[in-house]
Amino acid sequence: MKILGIEHIGIAVESLDKSAPFWREVLKISHRTTETVESEGVVTDIFDTGSGKVELLSALSEDSPVGKFLAKRGPGIHHICLQVDDIRSAIVELKAAGVELVKDEPSVGAEGYLVVFVHPRSAGGVLVELAERR
Amino acid sequence: MKILGIEHIGIAVESLDKSAPFWREVLKISHRTTETVESEGVVTDIFDTGSGKVELLSALSEDSPVGKFLAKRGPGIHHICLQVDDIRSAIVELKAAGVELVKDEPSVGAEGYLVVFVHPRSAGGVLVELAERR
Repeated sequence: MKILGIEHIGIAVESLDKSAPFWREVLKISHRTTETVESEGVVTDIFDTGSGKVELLSALSEDSPVGKFLAKRGPGIHHICLQVDDIRSAIVELKAAGVELVKDEPSVGAEGYLVVFVHPRSAGGVLVELAERR
Repeated sequence: MKILGIEHIGIAVESLDKSAPFWREVLKISHRTTETVESEGVVTDIFDTGSGKVELLSALSEDSPVGKFLAKRGPGIHHICLQVDDIRSAIVELKAAGVELVKDEPSVGAEGYLVVFVHPRSAGGVLVELAERR
């Protein structure tokens, strides 16, 4: 496993319409795409800083992971995503190191990346996504 | 103001000794430096992914910003930092846009960057640091 960099920061929002203007109009970060990721139960608005993206995450339902996060903690930073060279070798290495994953198999995330999530229990309270670009 | 990229993600930790091994030994992200930033009341362990850094933040006292965060929310992602070309023009633009800053003047952060923090009230619950490399 080789970490290639910070791919994005995921931010849970109550409303894309209310939250996007800060990133788009105040900070003037380039908007890349808006995408529904059914597997994660979110609509995501993706901004590209040029070196790492900001993904605003709006829950499709209250019982989705982001919906539960919003109910418990309110809007704010939900996870960080690190790009890896090879997601399957990353999973093997993490499991060998005793790291707890949310799911043991990669799923397809936003922009078609293959992704896996490290449980916050294994990462000092941080939800860490690892993503391989295909 | 031009955003140049994600400079780092700041993560509040109870103990650098307990939290650093995940980033250093499991993810094998290169350790760059350990620095005390008196102005922010933290000791920070800085890891460089090659594209954006991870800064683990240990509070110097319970009444420091990170100490208060840990007491309220526990360990986890504390802030994101975006690199800007010019911190002073950023401050002027943000104030003109009605954005609330934690302090209106830049201070010297880790690695000598000039930094300012946008209040989470103005950024959808996210503490956003802007930093100019000198």
